[in-house]
Amino acid sequence: MREYSNIYQEELLQQVLPFWMKNSRDEVHGGYFTCLDRAGDVYDTDKFIWLQGRQVWMFSMLYNNVEQREDWLKMALHGADFLRKNGRDKEGNWYFSLNREGKPLVQPYNIFSDCFAAMGFGALYKATQRDEHAEIARRTFEKILRRSGNTKGQYNKIYPGTRELKGFSLPMILSNLSLEIEHILDKSVVDSLISEVVHEVLDVFYNEEIGLALENVYADGSFCDSFEGRTVNPGHNLEAMWFLMDLGVRLNDQNLINKAVKISLDVLEYGWDKEFGGILYFMDIKGHPPQQLEWDQKLWWVHVEALVCMAKAYQLTGNEACQKWFVKLHDYTWNRFRDSQFGGEWFGYLNRRGEVLLPLKGGKWKGCFHVPRSLYQISTTLKKEVLSQGVTA
Amino acid sequence: MREYSNIYQEELLQQVLPFWMKNSRDEVHGGYFTCLDRAGDVYDTDKFIWLQGRQVWMFSMLYNNVEQREDWLKMALHGADFLRKNGRDKEGNWYFSLNREGKPLVQPYNIFSDCFAAMGFGALYKATQRDEHAEIARRTFEKILRRSGNTKGQYNKIYPGTRELKGFSLPMILSNLSLEIEHILDKSVVDSLISEVVHEVLDVFYNEEIGLALENVYADGSFCDSFEGRTVNPGHNLEAMWFLMDLGVRLNDQNLINKAVKISLDVLEYGWDKEFGGILYFMDIKGHPPQQLEWDQKLWWVHVEALVCMAKAYQLTGNEACQKWFVKLHDYTWNRFRDSQFGGEWFGYLNRRGEVLLPLKGGKWKGCFHVPRSLYQISTTLKKEVLSQGVTA
Repeated sequence: MREYSNIYQEELLQQVLPFWMKNSRDEVHGGYFTCLDRAGDVYDTDKFIWLQGRQVWMFSMLYNNVEQREDWLKMALHGADFLRKNGRDKEGNWYFSLNREGKPLVQPYNIFSDCFAAMGFGALYKATQRDEHAEIARRTFEKILRRSGNTKGQYNKIYPGTRELKGFSLPMILSNLSLEIEHILDKSVVDSLISEVVHEVLDVFYNEEIGLALENVYADGSFCDSFEGRTVNPGHNLEAMWFLMDLGVRLNDQNLINKAVKISLDVLEYGWDKEFGGILYFMDIKGHPPQQLEWDQKLWWVHVEALVCMAKAYQLTGNEACQKWFVKLHDYTWNRFRDSQFGGEWFGYLNRRGEVLLPLKGGKWKGCFHVPRSLYQISTTLKKEVLSQGVTA
Repeated sequence: MREYSNIYQEELLQQVLPFWMKNSRDEVHGGYFTCLDRAGDVYDTDKFIWLQGRQVWMFSMLYNNVEQREDWLKMALHGADFLRKNGRDKEGNWYFSLNREGKPLVQPYNIFSDCFAAMGFGALYKATQRDEHAEIARRTFEKILRRSGNTKGQYNKIYPGTRELKGFSLPMILSNLSLEIEHILDKSVVDSLISEVVHEVLDVFYNEEIGLALENVYADGSFCDSFEGRTVNPGHNLEAMWFLMDLGVRLNDQNLINKAVKISLDVLEYGWDKEFGGILYFMDIKGHPPQQLEWDQKLWWVHVEALVCMAKAYQLTGNEACQKWFVKLHDYTWNRFRDSQFGGEWFGYLNRRGEVLLPLKGGKWKGCFHVPRSLYQISTTLKKEVLSQGVTA
């Protein structure tokens, strides 16, 4: 497994990061272009806050954890300055998108804009030690917690009282964000947040009978037989499980780690497409037709997060099943998502057969995030000694 | 072409209508089930106002235009009673969806709920001559016009002023609705509405240079180079063009008919998938990756509306190109969307290769509407004498 470490590191430093460094800077208006075609050319200039915040995080994190390269820090600041000037409404909520010049296009209806902005400025503060960066991250984080009961505010279309469901995405992201911005929060806030999100993921969303976490459940975690309630997103499960493994390491909780590993293996078994290979995007837990027409597509983030999950699971437990899955996922992913002809960033969207569905490298939802983060996470994880006190099922 | 007429009529009366008559009535709570699997079994019980309204319209229209069958009228009233009791908020706006019992699930954010409710009650009034049915249709129609400037109200996420685009869907639906409920409106209202929607479709959304109508344009009809502005929906174009042909007949305007026929042929040429056959769902007018991941799928409504469009175009002009397209579309559609094994309603969603993607007969967006309406429209149209004073390009 150690040999893989070098491959992932080289892909990160030689292919993926240079692609974004070269093609994504908007030198005229600031911020990043993310809509980049196969060759790296810009095909759309709108700026999506999710992706702006994530790219700030990416380059700050590399500066903090890999090497204190000035060009990385400059790249992070390039996006952060644009975000600081243009990204928020008067109440401090983050818009969903801006036009190239930075004027708002879509209102702050989506709390993940705020999550990724907080994550970006939190990491940037670690690099710059500038109070204003910590302050933006902290204030954004406070607003996220305040909005967590009804994240969409006036834009929430659910009629109150008939069927109140909770979504898996927010606790999932918070389980990661809590560690990412730990350094700017009070210890007591972090501790209680961590124990809350572990509880939410494992006791509320994870359904023991079914063996995985559902995307939407009633407040008490019970199953709701509706399109939303039947939805399973295997990729979300796998990403959440490696966040839990990180929390398990931090809490020194082998039981938590073992649970997360077991669930990951069950999810892979369930979500793997037995006919064409790869992991399906959406499934209906009762086997009914999912409402998402893109249900059978193979998405980059699902596959690279699955790789991170199996790399960590293997490193933390020595479980051979995890190693086997890692190799299987590696072969599938590198053969199909990686662009063997043009290099650079990877493709994002394949059809069920694993053929390229959209030839983009970045778009409205795909930026400088999942691929480089995974390459970094995997190369780092596989450098570590394999621990074997864990499960070996 | 006259032989096709019988085939379409038989499919309507022997296969598709019996499927909905047998499987979609909720005898306990009223209204219709629309989430039906291949065999007609209910897999979800939520009730979507689009589809409830459309089914009321369908059975009322059959009663009015095909045969005064009591079971058809009862079926229409079955849905109308449920809608009347449960469908609206205090202001008279139609919810998007209700649960099985009729409690609201999703708020009235979507004006097409109102459009299809108006259409349903308008047609039902023709059958029942009950004032309350006319009144619901009329009041709903007035609210649609009042909301047309900002149809989504508080749920509108677009930030005002940065990029104000108009959508093609509303004028398209209004061009059809204006004829459907003509009998309950003042003549002056209908006349001015018709001339306005013809103007909107042909002078604002249709782009002469490009040769088709774009889904979203600036208020003056100019092109906006953004994901929304670059979007083409060939199916919407084709459906709108047969609405225009109907208006052309009503206005006795051969020029309008000829324009609609010419645009239809251009759209089919553009939207036809040269590799796998069928009409693509979404395209980007500049050839960039569309934001809709389902862009390459083949949808039932696109294909049956294309058939209606070519049947009418042929009948109104005698143009041989329309006949050829009709036959080509007929072969593609009947071979793939029709369920040769189970019969009944047709499949809705195929992948790019024309293989069944979701084995449902009805769902959240597919009900008793496009297939039976098209079968009726085509069988009726092809019974008529072919006119040949039109274009023969």
